[in-house]
Amino acid sequence: MIKFAEIEEAQNRISHIVKHTNLEYSDFFSQISGHQVYFKTENLQYTNSFKLRGASNFVLQLDPDIAARGVIAASSGNHGQGVAYIASKMGYPCVIVVPKGAIEAKVQAIKSFGAEVIYCGTFSEECRKKARELSEERKMIFIHGFDDPKVIAGQGTIGLEILEDFPEVEVILAPIGGGGLISGILSAVKERRPDIKVYGVEPSESNCMYVSLHEGKITKLLRTNTIADGLRSNRPGNLTFPIVRKYIDDIILVCEEDILKATKNLLLKVKLLVEPSGAVTSAALISKKIPGKNKKVVPIISGGNVDPEFIKKLLD
Amino acid sequence: MIKFAEIEEAQNRISHIVKHTNLEYSDFFSQISGHQVYFKTENLQYTNSFKLRGASNFVLQLDPDIAARGVIAASSGNHGQGVAYIASKMGYPCVIVVPKGAIEAKVQAIKSFGAEVIYCGTFSEECRKKARELSEERKMIFIHGFDDPKVIAGQGTIGLEILEDFPEVEVILAPIGGGGLISGILSAVKERRPDIKVYGVEPSESNCMYVSLHEGKITKLLRTNTIADGLRSNRPGNLTFPIVRKYIDDIILVCEEDILKATKNLLLKVKLLVEPSGAVTSAALISKKIPGKNKKVVPIISGGNVDPEFIKKLLD
Repeated sequence: MIKFAEIEEAQNRISHIVKHTNLEYSDFFSQISGHQVYFKTENLQYTNSFKLRGASNFVLQLDPDIAARGVIAASSGNHGQGVAYIASKMGYPCVIVVPKGAIEAKVQAIKSFGAEVIYCGTFSEECRKKARELSEERKMIFIHGFDDPKVIAGQGTIGLEILEDFPEVEVILAPIGGGGLISGILSAVKERRPDIKVYGVEPSESNCMYVSLHEGKITKLLRTNTIADGLRSNRPGNLTFPIVRKYIDDIILVCEEDILKATKNLLLKVKLLVEPSGAVTSAALISKKIPGKNKKVVPIISGGNVDPEFIKKLLD
Repeated sequence: MIKFAEIEEAQNRISHIVKHTNLEYSDFFSQISGHQVYFKTENLQYTNSFKLRGASNFVLQLDPDIAARGVIAASSGNHGQGVAYIASKMGYPCVIVVPKGAIEAKVQAIKSFGAEVIYCGTFSEECRKKARELSEERKMIFIHGFDDPKVIAGQGTIGLEILEDFPEVEVILAPIGGGGLISGILSAVKERRPDIKVYGVEPSESNCMYVSLHEGKITKLLRTNTIADGLRSNRPGNLTFPIVRKYIDDIILVCEEDILKATKNLLLKVKLLVEPSGAVTSAALISKKIPGKNKKVVPIISGGNVDPEFIKKLLD
């Protein structure tokens, strides 16, 4: 479990690095969902994803002499950008292992922060194995994308910001991949404000948390298959699973069609560029799966990193 | 001239209708311009354009018995959306005269608010003439897109919001079409805070304010030719010109190439969908035409209404 105080400490630690992102009310999504929708715009975060929060909270706690040997992470792109960004700010060497077929915009951004990019396999598990091996070989510090208490506490700062800016909130929606973001938010919100409903959202085709909760134990999916490249984790984390099991109100599953419809409407109606992983919470609104009526809902838009070709296809 | 008090009154009058829009810091535009850039995101305003402010301030002051006969406006689309939106809220009939070739997304949005759309000619002047004729025929109230004190005061509320949210601001950048937005901002800012520099931005190919200031009198352009469809006015307004002449620090001209480059970077780097008219202030940053170094700059992103086909072309 992550203590509330750890998240408050994380907030103090990273506040000069990350952006306190805005909430954006959307009349379009309010109308189609029958709720009052205020998007938490982490796509407008530096590196255009919330992952910078957890990465910064981890890296800023490193002993500088040890960190000087470098940091290493495995990532489909956004965690890699977060780690590369904060490493460059601190002057630490950085290696990111990405799967073949990673979004080009994400890879280019990682490189733009001066990190070395290594391609390996097509699944996050293979990348992680490779990154751990390299971390031993090169004596670099491995930073897990979600299953780490400092990373989870960093992501939890989103929950604190929502409570500060919008204490009237009734429902929070967060995407689930390995469970880092939702664990942070649950840890930040549920002890103080158990009245706030927190729902996790997963693609139906990549629903490891949903399956694990139903099985009552961490369960590994044989395959995942979703356009939401940031949510292709095939199992929850050892740390994230118990937190989610303890606190979550429910998991909402969304289909690929609704993810794409949500991404398109976020662009054309809300005027925000959002990646499919960041649009699953909006897909849950489109599919009218949020219980209640006229609730004050904060869906987290987790990121906005897509390739131009994807946008063109989306609009065809 | 518009009094500061009129803008404060406008703010009280329209605050339940319009969104107090957020400022978004952009590291990308800060880096390329050498300034600290905080976008005023009027593309995220209801109707996705600032024009709702002026339209609301006008319509909310009408005698309901007279307004019940209806309101009418000429517009390339955004002023029309603003008028149609507030008219629908008040239950007033509404007619919008748009030029042939108007952006389809804008026309559809106007219709979605229940207004009647009439196509006429290709220039804003022809549309305005037609709208004035219809207003006499049908006894409907004509609402000018920029050359009206209530409309100008409404747009000026943007200036008040900037002063409230970010009193450290040193430079404000606003697009100029007919001059309604810039007049409102100058009226809101310059009496109280003459230290703040306010620059207007015009496309080189549609620069009626620039030419008029240099001629020392309102001057009509023979032609305008810009992708920024909201800025194709061929002359400043009778009310807006003296305000701009009195207060403006300078006019910055931007080329079509930089407008498109700015629009593309706003989408891919900042993750905001912006229409070319709304991107001219960013184009001024790209072309490095803002005097000084490391200034706190607020460029106004005036709107975000584009057709999907435009986005696809932009990304080719």
